Amino acid sequence: MKYKREDLVNLLPYKPAKVKEVIRLHANESPYDLPQALKDSIFERVRGENFNYYYDPNCDELREALSEYLGIGPEKIFVGSGGDEIIYDIVLAFAGPGREVIIPVPSFPSYEIFSVISGAKVICVPLLLEEDSIHCSWKLDVSKIKSHFKKDVSQVMFICNPNNPTGDYFRDLDILELIEDFNGVVAIDEAYFEFGGKTFIKMISQFPNLVIIRTFSKVFSLAGLRIGYAVADENLIEELYKVKPPYNVNLFSQIAAVEILKHMDWVKEVKEKIINAREELKNKLKELPGITVYPSSTNFLLCKFKVPRDLVYKKLLEKGILVRKPEGKEVENMLRFSVGTPEQNEFLLKSLEEILKESMKL
Amino acid sequence: MKYKREDLVNLLPYKPAKVKEVIRLHANESPYDLPQALKDSIFERVRGENFNYYYDPNCDELREALSEYLGIGPEKIFVGSGGDEIIYDIVLAFAGPGREVIIPVPSFPSYEIFSVISGAKVICVPLLLEEDSIHCSWKLDVSKIKSHFKKDVSQVMFICNPNNPTGDYFRDLDILELIEDFNGVVAIDEAYFEFGGKTFIKMISQFPNLVIIRTFSKVFSLAGLRIGYAVADENLIEELYKVKPPYNVNLFSQIAAVEILKHMDWVKEVKEKIINAREELKNKLKELPGITVYPSSTNFLLCKFKVPRDLVYKKLLEKGILVRKPEGKEVENMLRFSVGTPEQNEFLLKSLEEILKESMKL
Ligand SMILES: Cc1ncc(COP(=O)(O)O)c(C=O)c1O
Ligand SMILES: Cc1ncc(COP(=O)(O)O)c(C=O)c1O
Repeated sequence: MKYKREDLVNLLPYKPAKVKEVIRLHANESPYDLPQALKDSIFERVRGENFNYYYDPNCDELREALSEYLGIGPEKIFVGSGGDEIIYDIVLAFAGPGREVIIPVPSFPSYEIFSVISGAKVICVPLLLEEDSIHCSWKLDVSKIKSHFKKDVSQVMFICNPNNPTGDYFRDLDILELIEDFNGVVAIDEAYFEFGGKTFIKMISQFPNLVIIRTFSKVFSLAGLRIGYAVADENLIEELYKVKPPYNVNLFSQIAAVEILKHMDWVKEVKEKIINAREELKNKLKELPGITVYPSSTNFLLCKFKVPRDLVYKKLLEKGILVRKPEGKEVENMLRFSVGTPEQNEFLLKSLEEILKESMKL
Repeated sequence: MKYKREDLVNLLPYKPAKVKEVIRLHANESPYDLPQALKDSIFERVRGENFNYYYDPNCDELREALSEYLGIGPEKIFVGSGGDEIIYDIVLAFAGPGREVIIPVPSFPSYEIFSVISGAKVICVPLLLEEDSIHCSWKLDVSKIKSHFKKDVSQVMFICNPNNPTGDYFRDLDILELIEDFNGVVAIDEAYFEFGGKTFIKMISQFPNLVIIRTFSKVFSLAGLRIGYAVADENLIEELYKVKPPYNVNLFSQIAAVEILKHMDWVKEVKEKIINAREELKNKLKELPGITVYPSSTNFLLCKFKVPRDLVYKKLLEKGILVRKPEGKEVENMLRFSVGTPEQNEFLLKSLEEILKESMKL
């Protein structure tokens, strides 16, 4: 097909694994669905809305609710159809043809994919892994990243913090040094913010080129509904409005997000259950043979294996557990496990123990 | 802000009019909301779904349902978050930097806006208006359009058929001639298909470069839920999958679209009511002084006024009726009215009559 874009020939359509009757530990979802009463309160409100009319293009009610949740003015908040759309909008607004996007890797794949689609040049800078017998941590290669900073080319930089798939925060000072030295837009993706509690959101008043990405897909347990948001200086937000499709967030999702923000007690409970489960899972994983577990401030754990990861992956799938094989040579023999319910985590541990003991025997 | 894209400085953020307690005749929505029973059947199904999990990224169930509705294989159908996202995806997949997009104008504004954002060069070719005392029609300027066809540059062409805002179909033979001569992707936007009944959808087997755009926002009365689809050869569809955000259509909207396709009796009723109301509105509008009404195969009517349209627009708004001032010098003193309920149309007619009689007196 000659009208295909030559620069996209290597891009693979994202067709995620079809999974039914499987334990989903591959997509960093919350394992907890909304209580029926909360769903019913959403239905009750939606029932009174006109499905036939375009709904609020600016998500005013949701931005007001977010403004209270965040303590930041609604004019500094922009809502999109998932963190994914926010990333797309940032790339379309600030990257695009003739521009560059800097991405510390491994990280969330959408940064690179959407940047390539926008026509921007992508510069990937590998993270540094500092590891000794007791501690290990993934660091930003600050000087390497800075060596790519340019004054005469417009650039965007994505920093996922805490980072997916590595799991933990980068050093605050490293991030600050990068923001201060950078001429372009810095997007800090805080999709997993609530599991770690640390944020750069207050910095937006100091840095007009800083945009924070958040999502309702993780601790808010609304992955199926597609709601994300950006927080930044109004001048930056204005550019995002230019590139978004007019009616990007559907009425049901806007209302669901507003409703769940009224039930922060439930969200807090989910958060605490997941954090507790993560710590327990981490400690028990560490007791398994031939495994390294990396620190995490998210709802997932990255693990390195002595045996080939493809074997572990396949055997887990045979037992009905779907996990993630993160991409990139930095994470070559690693698997990423989302934290599930205590029962799911128990089953994962039992399964892994069997698989590892058996394969180490071979 | 120096990191703004220079090529987007003239792009205005789309911030549609805030309208409460107004008769909405500006956005070509269906005036009929879903019956409560139909909404309840959607809630009933959605209640059983996991909000916390990502929902089907490929919209399989909806594509199967659409496949039955259309009589076309599901592999030739691609679902997006509104016709808007479909247009964005077509532009990102086939236009982009170094490429060109040909648009007969006036037409639906998203073609041009999204093309500019993609970095493509936009070529607008004005429609021809053939008008005598009895008939009038908007024609594609076939030879002018063809003069822009290039062999060495990848091009995309949008044809909105029936066209928004002009309201009617172009000549089949003109469209066919353009498709046959064109080397790039031709997107025929059939957002208003159901009100006119004519379609190029069967032509996709003959033309691998043809993609048809459809939406659930018009006769299906689901504008608030954001569902659109594309129909094309599989090779073309595959390229759209490359550029779409992984989970573009939320679970509620997927299920709502599936449910409404089971209630085609209701959709048919809506269609007939709107078509009847359009014909009646058209005939009565024609009796008003100083107005030209153009033919329509859609759910809206384009009208030219003798008095300044801004005056008519303002006076209508004062009476609580919001209509559209279409952009472009071809439609300079024209207004576009969506067809509402019989009561709304009656009120529009009465209001227009007052306004026109009064302002003609001046
Ligand atoms: C770092 C990061 N950012 C953004 C997202 C996108 O989330 P969503 O589009 O569901 O809001 C994810 C999802 O896994 C993520 O891990
Ligand atoms: C010609 C045309 N195409 C596409 C659309 C987009 O519709 P939606 O994004 O609601 O599906 C519209 C909406 O008015 C339209 O008029």
